[in-house]
Order: sequence, then structure tokens, then C-alpha cells
Amino acid sequence: MKVKWLLDSLGHDYRWVETDVMAGATRSPDFLARNPAGQVPAVVLDDGRTLAQSNAIIGFFGEGTPWLPTDPWARAKVYEWLFWEQYSHEPYIAVARFQRALLGKPADEIEPRLMERGRAALERMEAALTAAEWLVGDGPTLADLALVAYTRTAPDGGFDLAPFPAIRAWIGRVEAAFGIG
Amino acid sequence: MKVKWLLDSLGHDYRWVETDVMAGATRSPDFLARNPAGQVPAVVLDDGRTLAQSNAIIGFFGEGTPWLPTDPWARAKVYEWLFWEQYSHEPYIAVARFQRALLGKPADEIEPRLMERGRAALERMEAALTAAEWLVGDGPTLADLALVAYTRTAPDGGFDLAPFPAIRAWIGRVEAAFGIG
Ligand SMILES: N[C@@H](CCC(=O)N[C@@H](CS)C(=O)NCC(=O)O)C(=O)O
Ligand SMILES: N[C@@H](CCC(=O)N[C@@H](CS)C(=O)NCC(=O)O)C(=O)O
Repeated sequence: MKVKWLLDSLGHDYRWVETDVMAGATRSPDFLARNPAGQVPAVVLDDGRTLAQSNAIIGFFGEGTPWLPTDPWARAKVYEWLFWEQYSHEPYIAVARFQRALLGKPADEIEPRLMERGRAALERMEAALTAAEWLVGDGPTLADLALVAYTRTAPDGGFDLAPFPAIRAWIGRVEAAFGIG
Repeated sequence: MKVKWLLDSLGHDYRWVETDVMAGATRSPDFLARNPAGQVPAVVLDDGRTLAQSNAIIGFFGEGTPWLPTDPWARAKVYEWLFWEQYSHEPYIAVARFQRALLGKPADEIEPRLMERGRAALERMEAALTAAEWLVGDGPTLADLALVAYTRTAPDGGFDLAPFPAIRAWIGRVEAAFGIG
């Protein structure tokens, strides 16, 4: 979704191809020829070149927009959040949601470690967003876009956002900035 | 280590601060004030600004060097590998090594899923490195640097590199390119 939101807000033209992960569509030979990592999202340019990894994709299309600062330090801080999202946020927040909302696992079958680490990730964001309105600098960047994706759906994974008022206010700001419905 | 290798090969001056993760040094209030993610590596600039996430750090110091191409597509492909490393390589290859070599777990207590996914990551690299000498373009980049770090120590985690001749040859090339001893 972060890729879609970025392309939409930049007014890029694209064709959206729904890929049924649950039915193994990312393991088909055709798909693997495009993205050997066997995962969505992947974008295919008009000339056939393929790029995967959601955060590499938004980095590519975000280049030259205000959402990817040119200042080397601010840019590095954006990437710090993007890598943190992949390593310390998505594997807990998105995975708990996947298990509950998509696989239908009951709450007491979710590994406690997932919930603990997910909450630790939310606590870290709450601290950052209590100190500042945006994750990097004084306006929205790709860091906010990348982090809002699974943070706004964290409740589907059993994470209560009530104790995180700064995160809740920030979600509204990021949705408004990127026109997320 | 990837941060150290990059700084060394660029001739940057720095002070190396050993941080004892096993003794909880990354959870001390001092450390958390510098890096709220509570992990090494983290670099502190002369003016006190701190940057974490190994791949964000090498991206920052790699800017303006031949190892981070300026061509937007090549740069995006470098970042694609960097995100893949964090999501689909490190969590298996490095974690298996940590459990075996650092925690001393016997081979049969390592979760089979770790080994399976680690091997899948190596297979993907073997395919890429059979088709080309370097991960992106026709020379070494940060993608090679980031991936070589845990790939060269994969055997410590119980991954046999014998079936991966292209990876083995590539490790030698990357070590030579970055002066890794
Ligand atoms: N690090 C990747 C993760 C992508 C990912 O986990 N994709 C899932 C769906 S959200 C997938 O395609 N899974 C299918 C599979 O692994 O077979 C990214 O950010 O793009
Ligand atoms: N995504 C981070 C991962 C860093 C990481 O896993 N660091 C480990 C040591 S290799 C650590 O500091 N662990 C201590 C902790 O989690 O408390 C990066 O690439 O920099």
C-alpha cells in the first residue's frame, strides 16, 4: 500500500496487478522470474526492469520529491527509519496482524514475543512523536509513509493504540499529507 | 563490521567503542539516549548526532563514493539488496550463527525454519552471482559489502557453502575490493 499511496500522490500512471499470496502466486515461475525474492510488492517499469522491496521502491519514486530530503543527514535519518521498519517493526506489527486477521489465529495463540516486540516498537515511535511532529525534520517524509502503513492497522494485530496518543495524532497527519483514505 | 570496513577503506578517522551486547550494554540509559533502538552499530558524529542501522550508516558514508552509484536505477537496486539483507538474509543467517557460535546451541536445537530460510537466501544469492560477478552493475557496491558480512560467516551458523561456488568466489572478490582481512 505504501507504494500505491506514493504513486497516487505523485500522480504516476500505473497498472495494479493483484497477486494472491495465500494461493502461492508469488511462487509461480513467472513471478519468480520477475522477483526472485518471491514477494510482493514488486514494480515492473515499462521497459521490463523490476524492482522489489517496498522501501527501495518508495526510495526510487520518492527521489526528487520533498519526501526524500536531499540533505545527506536528513536522508540518512529517513533511511534509518526505513531499515528500522523492516527489522524492528514490520516483523512484529505486520506479522501479528497477518496471523490474527488473515490466518484467523485467536489472540492466545500469538507468540508473546511478537506482541512484546511490537509494543516496544510502538513505544519507540511514541517517544519520537512526542518529541516531534514528524519522524525526520519538520515535514512528512518517506519515513512517515513507510511507518504509517502497518502502524495504522496495528489494532488488527491486537495492539491497542489507546496508550499511544502521539502515534494516533501522527497517523492523522500522515494520512492527510499523503492523501491516504 | 560492514561499517568498520567501509570507514577503513575510505580512510575515515574514528574511535571504535566496543559495546557488550551480551552484558546488556545496549540497554543502558546512556546507550538508549544515543540510539533508542538499543542496538549496535550506531555512529556518533563529532557534533553528537547519532545514526543507527548498519545499512543507513553505510549509505551515509558511501554517498559520493563509487560504491553507491548515482544512477537512480542502480542506486535503487543497491537499496533493494540492502532491504532484502535486513528482511530475508540477516534474520536467518546471522541469527543461526548467533545461536550456535555465541549462545553455543547444538545444531539440532536450531529451529529448522531458520536453516531453511537461510539456505533459500543463499540460493538466491548463488543464482544472482552465477549470472553476474557483482550484485549490482559491473563493480562492487554497498550491496556486496552489506551481504558479504554475514555470508562469509554463514558456516559458523551451520550453513555449508560448498554447494555455492559462485558465492565463494564472490566473497573473495568482495574481500579484495574492500580490503577485508
Ligand atoms: N521486505 C519486503 C517484504 C514483503 C513481504 O513480506 N511480502 C509478503 C506479503 S506482504 C509476501 O509477498 N509474501 C509471500 C511469500 O513470502 O511467499 C518488502 O518490504 O517489500
Ligand atoms: N537492523 C540493525 C540490527 C542490529 C542488531 O541486530 N544489533 C545487535 C547486535 S549484532 C544488537 O545490538 N543487539 C542488542 C539488543 O538487541 O539488545 C542493523 O542492521 O544495524
